[in-house]
Amino acid sequence: MNDPLKNFRVVLVNPLYGGNVGAICRCMANCGISDLVIAERNYEVDNDECRKRAMHAEPIFDNRREYATLAEAVSDCGLVAGTSARSGLYRSHAKTAREWAPILYEKAQNNRIALVFGTEDKGLSKEQLALCTQIIQIPSHPDYTSLNLSHAVMICCYELFLASERFEPNEELSLEASSALRERMFSAWENTLYDIGFMKEDKAEHMMLGLRRILSRGLLTESDVKILMGIARQSQWNALQLKKVNGQTPRPIATDGDK
Amino acid sequence: MNDPLKNFRVVLVNPLYGGNVGAICRCMANCGISDLVIAERNYEVDNDECRKRAMHAEPIFDNRREYATLAEAVSDCGLVAGTSARSGLYRSHAKTAREWAPILYEKAQNNRIALVFGTEDKGLSKEQLALCTQIIQIPSHPDYTSLNLSHAVMICCYELFLASERFEPNEELSLEASSALRERMFSAWENTLYDIGFMKEDKAEHMMLGLRRILSRGLLTESDVKILMGIARQSQWNALQLKKVNGQTPRPIATDGDK
Repeated sequence: MNDPLKNFRVVLVNPLYGGNVGAICRCMANCGISDLVIAERNYEVDNDECRKRAMHAEPIFDNRREYATLAEAVSDCGLVAGTSARSGLYRSHAKTAREWAPILYEKAQNNRIALVFGTEDKGLSKEQLALCTQIIQIPSHPDYTSLNLSHAVMICCYELFLASERFEPNEELSLEASSALRERMFSAWENTLYDIGFMKEDKAEHMMLGLRRILSRGLLTESDVKILMGIARQSQWNALQLKKVNGQTPRPIATDGDK
Repeated sequence: MNDPLKNFRVVLVNPLYGGNVGAICRCMANCGISDLVIAERNYEVDNDECRKRAMHAEPIFDNRREYATLAEAVSDCGLVAGTSARSGLYRSHAKTAREWAPILYEKAQNNRIALVFGTEDKGLSKEQLALCTQIIQIPSHPDYTSLNLSHAVMICCYELFLASERFEPNEELSLEASSALRERMFSAWENTLYDIGFMKEDKAEHMMLGLRRILSRGLLTESDVKILMGIARQSQWNALQLKKVNGQTPRPIATDGDK
């Protein structure tokens, strides 16, 4: 029982469309869940459509099991979580997928847990909900509450996958530049803005505050600061060359030891 | 600008499958987002398949706009958030959909925001990502990172919808029973367990602790406690009737004023 995600079982009650079943296999694979069971099937799902939509997650479909009743499909599960978009009878203890996810993930350390999804057009019946020990409510806008089956499965699997903390977000390779480096950059820009003739002494303070504001709104990494400093210096070099050509005396370039 | 969700635009770059476009309309409707734009379209999407999958969200498809370039599709947007499952160039500042959602929702109070999704097989190109001011990373399991397009849209819209706090979870109609009511129930069960002959004085304390443990593991509402108390009393009544028939003297029934 090393990976609690492997203890989750997606149980589809009488799914009507092969495309949905295939899309669900892919959702499950996207979230590290692989145990698929179909219960109470009344329709032959379209296997071609299913395989097309499953993409590289076909093994999940191939390894599925099928049972005549929901009771059999979940008989070995310690927890049975039914899903519903609606509220009402049997649903007063419902929690959202996000509220349930960490609780169910914790329970999955040493319990097999069924996630039960009703048929596309009707959802779960009262009898099917009675088998459930938990009700997961999937949030949706009041103007259109009915989710496509595979999207309902995606939301539940996604929440469990996030609860697993298995996902490693991009490492922030580029840290904020240090204050000292930023100050060197502003100093370079100040010199440049004088030398290119963009500002004069009396407006300098105001202008530099403006520039600081603009460049402090978001993350500014060391590499960003070096780019901006390079632009400032190159621009200043051009301005100083021009002054020389014109026989003007350039202001001495401020140096800060940074190449 | 009353509803920030209305300031989000879903931009699909050259979608290949009408079914995906239809499913995306439904996802958007599920999450209160309605502005759909298609950019750089090279394929005629299958409109029949699209309308079939859109279900009641067809108006979103009917009101879509189409632009030859991504730049035109987002030209009036203050923020342009591109989506990606991968990490790499241009993506080092990516945050997950969950991290971005509250930030983008807040910005949507007074900015139009594009959510840009690449074509099914390739995602967004470097040139397309360069137009983006933000990168949204959608978490997925390392064994199978590629999400179906409509599921990627669902995750982003779902996170924004939750960030809107528009969803009202079921009100918990059934509150935990009061301690006093629970104690009356345990008292009823204690009497019953004696009278049905299930426990004797010397084991009573141990058994009652066990029963308390079992019945204190989850929520126990007032209505639950009344059901359990009713079962205890009815069971006790049967046992006492039997004693009378057998000419035994029943223990006096404890009363607690509760009918």
